[in-house]
Amino acid sequence: MTGAPYIAVVGPGRADRPQLTEAEAVGRGLAEAGAVVVCGGLGGVMEAACRGAREAGGITLGLLPGIDRSAANAWVSLAVPTGLGEARNALVVRAADAVIAVAGEYGTLSEIALALKAGKPVVGIGTWDLGRDPDPITRAREGAEAVALALAAVR
Amino acid sequence: MTGAPYIAVVGPGRADRPQLTEAEAVGRGLAEAGAVVVCGGLGGVMEAACRGAREAGGITLGLLPGIDRSAANAWVSLAVPTGLGEARNALVVRAADAVIAVAGEYGTLSEIALALKAGKPVVGIGTWDLGRDPDPITRAREGAEAVALALAAVR
Amino acid sequence: MTGAPYIAVVGPGRADRPQLTEAEAVGRGLAEAGAVVVCGGLGGVMEAACRGAREAGGITLGLLPGIDRSAANAWVSLAVPTGLGEARNALVVRAADAVIAVAGEYGTLSEIALALKAGKPVVGIGTWDLGRDPDPITRAREGAEAVALALAAVR
Amino acid sequence: MTGAPYIAVVGPGRADRPQLTEAEAVGRGLAEAGAVVVCGGLGGVMEAACRGAREAGGITLGLLPGIDRSAANAWVSLAVPTGLGEARNALVVRAADAVIAVAGEYGTLSEIALALKAGKPVVGIGTWDLGRDPDPITRAREGAEAVALALAAVR
Repeated sequence: MTGAPYIAVVGPGRADRPQLTEAEAVGRGLAEAGAVVVCGGLGGVMEAACRGAREAGGITLGLLPGIDRSAANAWVSLAVPTGLGEARNALVVRAADAVIAVAGEYGTLSEIALALKAGKPVVGIGTWDLGRDPDPITRAREGAEAVALALAAVR
Repeated sequence: MTGAPYIAVVGPGRADRPQLTEAEAVGRGLAEAGAVVVCGGLGGVMEAACRGAREAGGITLGLLPGIDRSAANAWVSLAVPTGLGEARNALVVRAADAVIAVAGEYGTLSEIALALKAGKPVVGIGTWDLGRDPDPITRAREGAEAVALALAAVR
Repeated sequence: MTGAPYIAVVGPGRADRPQLTEAEAVGRGLAEAGAVVVCGGLGGVMEAACRGAREAGGITLGLLPGIDRSAANAWVSLAVPTGLGEARNALVVRAADAVIAVAGEYGTLSEIALALKAGKPVVGIGTWDLGRDPDPITRAREGAEAVALALAAVR
Repeated sequence: MTGAPYIAVVGPGRADRPQLTEAEAVGRGLAEAGAVVVCGGLGGVMEAACRGAREAGGITLGLLPGIDRSAANAWVSLAVPTGLGEARNALVVRAADAVIAVAGEYGTLSEIALALKAGKPVVGIGTWDLGRDPDPITRAREGAEAVALALAAVR
């Protein structure tokens, strides 16, 4: 799978129903396109993206903050308990060619910032507005559009 | 110095004259208050803060992204070449009780986000507006005010 | 795969023919037993273990020291460019339930030491002798035996 | 202090009296020579080395595994709570020009191995025998000799 695109899906560990629906659609779309889904391995948006990907036959990589692999959600194909705490956010971004952010709080904001710092494309669904013009985040209204934009950006 | 407050000063590696003036005032004020200045160890705002602190008799800690200690600016008391790349931003935040952000680009934004995620006070001078109400960043107009606000927040 | 055993295979990036033969047998045996092969993602023993695993239908995780995914050997299923340098050795050990060391130089020795520090079983084929009695490393003469010993230790 | 030698002193968190005596002598000798003492920040050999250095007017850097600065021993000048767990051992080695190992268990062995991997001089007092000829560790019988050997190796 080292030739496939790796796309990170980042977002809150607790999310509402519409956010979970979009995250799941993102995961499904990525899997259908043959991309690897990279995430922080926990719940909420991360879990929904993994579930969408796995149900579509895809593969998911969960980079966990702690040292316990069993903290991974049930839809993670391969779990890496980094033991780095929030420093693992940098590894999520490094492992990916582009980042799709679905909503998100401060942890998500750190991942968006690190991706932009590294010059990697960031696509957002209902996520942070950095108040910059032009907007450094490519906006999508729903999951399938986000997938298309992210894959276009890395090809 | 393990009993002293540790305050991170974060901001761009290249800064304009007014930003450098405020960063230097922040460093000076922190040193005069007996605080340790933590930073990323490089130039711009980081260097100005270290210079201000050292000229006031203070001590500065530089957590570098690379593995070469000589990349540290001349005003770093102790340099730690972490070799973690931008993941060292998480260590800058961890090492600090509060964060003062002077201006800043995406790297600075990642540090602000990680500090807020960790529940640490963030004071800003002309830095990112996260578009949240109430503003999670305590605003200061100049260096001495930022120092006072940061120290008040950690006491 | 979060329920499967994760077994790290560690060893030199350049290895001789007998070492590569045993590493490949280790990878094959782990895959046949349904275990995930974790490694540093590069050449030599790492590559041979991955090849053995993949040819047997298994899955391999490569935790790379650099930030470039393309440095992974061709048999890595999922590559994580950690950007941590040799600090990634700690992540290889963390990701695994047990470690199989095939020969090895100082990098391998650091992984053996970190595994023993964490209380994880270490099985060795022609690797370091730590001069301790009883030997903290369980010795195997060839790959299949090492696999059996490692899997027995984690069950 | 970025021009001074940085020398790591590594060893067990619990040590016997003769080990502590040598570690303290190492710290004192390093401080008298103007070197910065780098260590893991905890007790035993680390604490003794820091105490020796501080009592001689030196400066000590403690790179802690956890996120709590207060875990540092009382003789640490600057404490960095890395939050990296045992991966911080790699940072201790990176921060240093040479390593002095006093006795030590598996954590110490990982630091010796990482230092040798990085091509950094390692001086040992009663520490691991790696069974190699020539011995990659320069042997010292007591603290002052270890300091002299380490400083000679980095000049």
